[in-house]
Amino acid sequence: MEPSGLPTLQDVSRVAGVSTATVSRCINDPSKVARKTREQIQKAIDELGYTPNFGGRVLASRRTNSVGVVIPTMDNAMFAGALQAFQEVLTDAGKTLLVASSGYDPAQEFRQIRALVANGADGLLLIGTDRPQDTRDFLARRRVPHVLTWCFEPDSTACIVGFDNRKAGRLIAEAALALGHRNVAIIGGISRNNDRAAGRMAGMRDALAAIGPPARITRVVETRYGLDQGGDAFDVVMQANSAPTAVLCGNDVLATGAILRARDRGIRVPQDVSITGIDDHNLARVVAPALTTVRVPQREMGRQAARVLLGLIAGDRTLRGCEVEVSLVRRQSLAGPPPGG
Amino acid sequence: MEPSGLPTLQDVSRVAGVSTATVSRCINDPSKVARKTREQIQKAIDELGYTPNFGGRVLASRRTNSVGVVIPTMDNAMFAGALQAFQEVLTDAGKTLLVASSGYDPAQEFRQIRALVANGADGLLLIGTDRPQDTRDFLARRRVPHVLTWCFEPDSTACIVGFDNRKAGRLIAEAALALGHRNVAIIGGISRNNDRAAGRMAGMRDALAAIGPPARITRVVETRYGLDQGGDAFDVVMQANSAPTAVLCGNDVLATGAILRARDRGIRVPQDVSITGIDDHNLARVVAPALTTVRVPQREMGRQAARVLLGLIAGDRTLRGCEVEVSLVRRQSLAGPPPGG
Repeated sequence: MEPSGLPTLQDVSRVAGVSTATVSRCINDPSKVARKTREQIQKAIDELGYTPNFGGRVLASRRTNSVGVVIPTMDNAMFAGALQAFQEVLTDAGKTLLVASSGYDPAQEFRQIRALVANGADGLLLIGTDRPQDTRDFLARRRVPHVLTWCFEPDSTACIVGFDNRKAGRLIAEAALALGHRNVAIIGGISRNNDRAAGRMAGMRDALAAIGPPARITRVVETRYGLDQGGDAFDVVMQANSAPTAVLCGNDVLATGAILRARDRGIRVPQDVSITGIDDHNLARVVAPALTTVRVPQREMGRQAARVLLGLIAGDRTLRGCEVEVSLVRRQSLAGPPPGG
Repeated sequence: MEPSGLPTLQDVSRVAGVSTATVSRCINDPSKVARKTREQIQKAIDELGYTPNFGGRVLASRRTNSVGVVIPTMDNAMFAGALQAFQEVLTDAGKTLLVASSGYDPAQEFRQIRALVANGADGLLLIGTDRPQDTRDFLARRRVPHVLTWCFEPDSTACIVGFDNRKAGRLIAEAALALGHRNVAIIGGISRNNDRAAGRMAGMRDALAAIGPPARITRVVETRYGLDQGGDAFDVVMQANSAPTAVLCGNDVLATGAILRARDRGIRVPQDVSITGIDDHNLARVVAPALTTVRVPQREMGRQAARVLLGLIAGDRTLRGCEVEVSLVRRQSLAGPPPGG
């Protein structure tokens, strides 16, 4: 017995009268152990109430062959395309992907990162660049190979495989401006602790301020990503004294919620008001009218991120990140402003 | 140095001239270590090229406080609602959720299960009941506390917190029959290695056979869950010599894909053909016409599954699973058959 009083593999081996190697094989690959021996070992395990020592196995193999990802939320398919592609490359390389979620809380993200590292993750994929100093110190001190994604900063010293959220915001706002919109509302994600949401809104503001005279921002609402939240925010921006002719949303979930609410209110999209998204999520092509949005090449980004992370894990310190390009997708939800709008 | 030649925590402690406890504290909670000491340790770490021994930490704490889930795919939001609720309960209990995905492949599921257990997961949530004997033997032999979900079998000896897929299939087929449909096509998920997809289709067949005279099944197509796949399958079932008046889909993603394709083809839903889903996914309320479907109470199921799994991990062997109830949600995609249909 260990000092903790818990039975060990050695105890099982002694009681069963077989080697520890046989016990280990029986636990991990029972088909390779003769039936009679298996039964002896099972009997010993049952008698002792033995529970295998998970940590011991990790220690024995040193490398667990897993890679961790911390995404902000499991609650919608926002990250699904990139994750699936990321996973496919890792699976081909014999690695297991473990996904944890932070609930958009930097302290919880740090806990998840520590848990993944403690559980033996060989490397991490993290969303966005903006995180507290103690998290960054931990990653540096523990020398955890990690790639950042869903963002891009050309001058960053971090290894980033992602896209420029600010550019995405600028693209969609420029598309609205080009059609003549000058009274614009913004429904964004909550920008606190979320550099992607903040970047998207900053890009929209850049574009709206860059023309002369600048377009008027009638209202800005920040809300959680969700259909109902998008709908509620739409009600708020449409209540303003001078209603916008276009509502630029920080992602497709919010934009889809806004379109559903417009339908409920008898507001026609795009005849009465235009609504746009960002991401080119499945919802964007399903909702009617279909969303004009900015496409994020999720699969390409996920694959690239996996390749770079595998390189870092293999010890290649020369690897740098790369930017994947976003592009405007024109569908039906954006048209010119209504006459007099 | 270890026999492997890798530097150890002890090496760092010797070179830095501090205790191993201080090195350990410096790595895990640097704010608690004086700056000068931190610098000494960092210098030693840099000189030695030390990488912390993750396995060692797991071993030291015995319990990693993580719980694993293996879902079939990360590629859409099918499991998102339940997972998010599952995670919320676990987070409150101080546990980290690690999600892996099997790609609907039983061998990959088994690899992911072993990886999660090797990485120290205290318990597992698995989707469905149908898995190879070696996977079940492994779970039994390693005494891994685990809960099955997304399915329900009252007589199973496993601990299941889920719903009856067969009942869900029956409910939606009965709704179509009640409106007078007698020529029905089925677009299901791939039933091989997927007891949920198989159960849903079996339930539809049960209902269609139970009336007198039985309804005619014009065509059955199995396909991967995806919008394009649903659309392609819709083309196939509508090509049949005698077209169906209702197309029952195995989930909302397939049904949404079918509705989009019907729109492209100029086929009116529900005037020319009715289309139904299962799950009550976000897509079901977003697509136009909105889907008549069967609601799976995902959040309730996720919360319950988490509570039961936490109980099993805590050693409560008396816990049994429970069934959450599915219910019909009537929207616009299902109406009576067209005249003469």
